[in-house]
Amino acid sequence: MEVAIVVIGDELLIGQVVDTNSGDIARMIAPAGWTVKYVESVHDDSSAIKGAVERGMESADIVLMTGGLGPTKDDITKETLREIFGGGMVLDSGVLEHVRSVFQRRGLNMNALTESQAMVPDSCTVIRNELGTAPVMWFEKEGKVVVAMPGVPFETRHAFRNEVLPRLLSRFGQRSAIGHRTLVVTDITESDLAENLEQWESSLPEHLHLAYLPQAGYIRLRLDGIGDDSLMVDRDLDNAVSWLQDWLGDKVLATADLTPEQVLADELRRRGLTFATAESCTGGNVVHRLTLLPGISDVLCGSVVSYSNEVKHNVLGVDNETLSRLGAVSEPVARMMAEGVRKALGAGCAISTSGIAGPGGATPDKPVGTVCMAFSTPQATRSATFRFPGDRQRVIDRASTVALIEMVKLLRQS
Amino acid sequence: MEVAIVVIGDELLIGQVVDTNSGDIARMIAPAGWTVKYVESVHDDSSAIKGAVERGMESADIVLMTGGLGPTKDDITKETLREIFGGGMVLDSGVLEHVRSVFQRRGLNMNALTESQAMVPDSCTVIRNELGTAPVMWFEKEGKVVVAMPGVPFETRHAFRNEVLPRLLSRFGQRSAIGHRTLVVTDITESDLAENLEQWESSLPEHLHLAYLPQAGYIRLRLDGIGDDSLMVDRDLDNAVSWLQDWLGDKVLATADLTPEQVLADELRRRGLTFATAESCTGGNVVHRLTLLPGISDVLCGSVVSYSNEVKHNVLGVDNETLSRLGAVSEPVARMMAEGVRKALGAGCAISTSGIAGPGGATPDKPVGTVCMAFSTPQATRSATFRFPGDRQRVIDRASTVALIEMVKLLRQS
Repeated sequence: MEVAIVVIGDELLIGQVVDTNSGDIARMIAPAGWTVKYVESVHDDSSAIKGAVERGMESADIVLMTGGLGPTKDDITKETLREIFGGGMVLDSGVLEHVRSVFQRRGLNMNALTESQAMVPDSCTVIRNELGTAPVMWFEKEGKVVVAMPGVPFETRHAFRNEVLPRLLSRFGQRSAIGHRTLVVTDITESDLAENLEQWESSLPEHLHLAYLPQAGYIRLRLDGIGDDSLMVDRDLDNAVSWLQDWLGDKVLATADLTPEQVLADELRRRGLTFATAESCTGGNVVHRLTLLPGISDVLCGSVVSYSNEVKHNVLGVDNETLSRLGAVSEPVARMMAEGVRKALGAGCAISTSGIAGPGGATPDKPVGTVCMAFSTPQATRSATFRFPGDRQRVIDRASTVALIEMVKLLRQS
Repeated sequence: MEVAIVVIGDELLIGQVVDTNSGDIARMIAPAGWTVKYVESVHDDSSAIKGAVERGMESADIVLMTGGLGPTKDDITKETLREIFGGGMVLDSGVLEHVRSVFQRRGLNMNALTESQAMVPDSCTVIRNELGTAPVMWFEKEGKVVVAMPGVPFETRHAFRNEVLPRLLSRFGQRSAIGHRTLVVTDITESDLAENLEQWESSLPEHLHLAYLPQAGYIRLRLDGIGDDSLMVDRDLDNAVSWLQDWLGDKVLATADLTPEQVLADELRRRGLTFATAESCTGGNVVHRLTLLPGISDVLCGSVVSYSNEVKHNVLGVDNETLSRLGAVSEPVARMMAEGVRKALGAGCAISTSGIAGPGGATPDKPVGTVCMAFSTPQATRSATFRFPGDRQRVIDRASTVALIEMVKLLRQS
């Protein structure tokens, strides 16, 4: 099946909100072998919405709409859908009751605008939006299905996964055999990878497809297979992964679609080690990324974000003489930070970062982007200095990723 | 001028990468009074790209393309542009030299695929992509301008701001008078705001437009004005902002487009106070968000992320008896954490968070989403318990935002 996604909202087209709904939907339909043909983002404007929906119905089997369903007055999506699919507007008593109960649960007052959320075109089937107040609306015309969903990402994700997708699958059926594999690769550029893999890639069975997905600091290699025989698709995918593993060796960070923080968490668990971070320039981003993982408290002790030299000295035990002689951005200070946080928090191993994220703070021999790191385990402490390009956020992101990856590599070597 | 944005890349349509380029471009063209009419994301597929570019040229004045210009073999954008605009492909010696210098600077090997980046349609004007290797290409046909840019966000942002936008402005000219104002508002729902403002909004001068931009934990109210007389646009915007400020009172967190962390940083600077965080469930997200702000080291001492009870006791001085009697997720523990981190890091004021981000860890009286916080200043320590809906990431995000906002409110009251 081919899906067109129509994303509605002025806020997207003035750059104040980023659309994550279309990506969420794409990932959820992929296992069915369905593809997103295109995504179109349009203004809260009747003729723009009408044009986009009609174009979607012409060029795809399913049109999924998100946004344009809030309580504020510029939300005209419902009226436009009524125009397209005919009929009138009706008050849906189920939706009204649900809106009332959501407001009651949140201790909020119901007002006339909120009540208007219960008005729907009578040409649609209403699907419950469990986590919000705007109803999900299912339309059908000439074999095409159009589903309008709210714009709030967690509402859309929940309603699509639990309510909309099951109904779509039973309405359209799905391909019998699909499969995906992902390898996470580091220490090689996209160009080198592509040039070296070109010949192998062209020798792959026709029903396999290889995609390069470069991230900051690593590359995800994704293999997709679609066919009618699931044993064959799985076997061919496994063979391709084995070949890539052999060829890439220790450049392979993971053979599943894992982030560097997930890979590190797995390595720590496997070794029964606890972990801590001492962060200066990364400002807590490394520990923040780890704490987004459920259940991480079994290996994570915590972190000291030492944004001043006093904290480096008083809490982490960094030597004042070294601080003033070499400066905070130096490998000896990074080593003392990593060893100090292990001691202070009672952790088995630790990383530290100290650098110049910019835009200020640079010196002639330490330009913006210079980051010293140390990696400490019960066996040894190592340090290294990196220079990352880009603005403050990019330096912080990249340094955090590299810190996680280098810690994994050190653990695997030891 | 109306702009159509065409975003190219399979990775976007399978949900592995989120498009941030279109939003970046939208924000950069807004001050010129130009609008993004729509954004279309399409596959790395010749007929999809051709269709999208031609549709853009029919319906807008300017077509801005991002993506589809990497070194890997599925990048077919250039060949498609050559088909649309005619002519042949040529090797651009300037681009080749630039690609060589970029690779040299990064210490990487040049290969045939990388060299192919210097091939361009001879119907385009090449614009330098200072931060990357894929060239920016400018095409014109029948009064319409089409610009193809790389997909890597920091390259696109840099090239668009510094090279493409100035050329577009001089090519098309711009409206004489545009203005924007943003109010950041808390403690009111979008519905209540909209219902209460409906009458006032309809009385606004026609050249002003009000938009509601709800975030997790607060709402941005954005006023845009476009006209020919800049004095009048500014005066009307200022009047509207004054009216909103009077009506909203202390619900106004900021009268500029600032994040809660920026507002807190300003309040701390104004009072000459330093700041620290003691984070359990937010896992360093509060301090991470603060450290994304350049120059924050003048008010930020740092943070202790205390993911275990040992760290809460040993580093923050939380009483073991209280920890075992009331549990870590309790207001007394949060208070000891906030006061403890002030002392440990030598900070003037501090916040702390201790909660259950989920999915595990809930108890009958402390469901997932329960977060205890404390706010400590030289004058007093206050605490509160919140319950946030949603999954782990949402609880962490929301708790972080609320912690920042509540700290601002406490500082303003004292």
